Amino acid sequence: MRYCADCGAAVELRTPQDDNRERYVCTSCDIIHYQNPKIIVGAIPEWEDGRILLCLRAIEPRHGLWTLPAGFMENGETVTQGAARETLEEANARVDIHELLGLYNLPYINQVQMLFRATLLDLDFSPGVESLDVKLFKEEEIPWEQLAFRPVKYALENFFADRKRGEFKLHSGDLAPPTPRF
Amino acid sequence: MRYCADCGAAVELRTPQDDNRERYVCTSCDIIHYQNPKIIVGAIPEWEDGRILLCLRAIEPRHGLWTLPAGFMENGETVTQGAARETLEEANARVDIHELLGLYNLPYINQVQMLFRATLLDLDFSPGVESLDVKLFKEEEIPWEQLAFRPVKYALENFFADRKRGEFKLHSGDLAPPTPRF
Repeated sequence: MRYCADCGAAVELRTPQDDNRERYVCTSCDIIHYQNPKIIVGAIPEWEDGRILLCLRAIEPRHGLWTLPAGFMENGETVTQGAARETLEEANARVDIHELLGLYNLPYINQVQMLFRATLLDLDFSPGVESLDVKLFKEEEIPWEQLAFRPVKYALENFFADRKRGEFKLHSGDLAPPTPRF
Repeated sequence: MRYCADCGAAVELRTPQDDNRERYVCTSCDIIHYQNPKIIVGAIPEWEDGRILLCLRAIEPRHGLWTLPAGFMENGETVTQGAARETLEEANARVDIHELLGLYNLPYINQVQMLFRATLLDLDFSPGVESLDVKLFKEEEIPWEQLAFRPVKYALENFFADRKRGEFKLHSGDLAPPTPRF
């Protein structure tokens, strides 16, 4: 950030009064431009035979790897509305969203990821513009080595373990920056 | 938003390619300035005798009303780190943060509020700059009619009901815009 989004003057990094961290503050109109973490919302869509819907990414990062439908939460929606919207956009799939299963912090990229258990409502799905392919996977078919992101891996592991046990609960985790090999 | 934070040129509202909603896009450098919901993190700090720590707000909105310590999550922290930091800043109080108890969507102001069960670690607390007073309340002493925000009320109701039952769980809710009287 170099310019004030409100008045167009230059901003400077300084600690406002009664604050304890540096913010971008406008040198002309004095407005403070706060920057805060963003929320990623997504679904773990389960068909009635137990298979899970995954999307093959058509975009960077992680082009060509498999992921759960998920993306940035938008203004004006709830977390579950966001998870359903992302599933519709990436997989043209309709879901009922259930409880929050995975809550993952990625503080090194200022993200909080929230993945919800979901029921896939019909088999009329197809790749959205951000997906190359959309497919249902049995637990033993999940492409563990070709998953795009660690929260997707953790959420699927937690989901299958909970399903085996017969009870779903909220799993939380704090992720450190990935090693280059993941 | 009127100016590009990156180059200072004017922005315009338009729907970028492969997108389905209007964004602020720079007319000169074409960068898209996304705007997304913000996360409020807070704690329900319980002392060993069962009393709960509340803060009397010294700032607007809701100056002079009672609230749980909570505030905007900052970049570079996790949700539980944020809840502990807010408790330290608003009440000069140290807490252990436990499970997520309340997850409330306020889509009309683009907020997601996350309130965590917490244990107050000592009685050495005092008002921070945003608080007029900080006090421990028994359940029957909670100033229900002088609470600052609805998520605070819901989280306290859920907390006390769960404590009575002997088991804490995640409670979620979607809030519509408040009526002027609340």
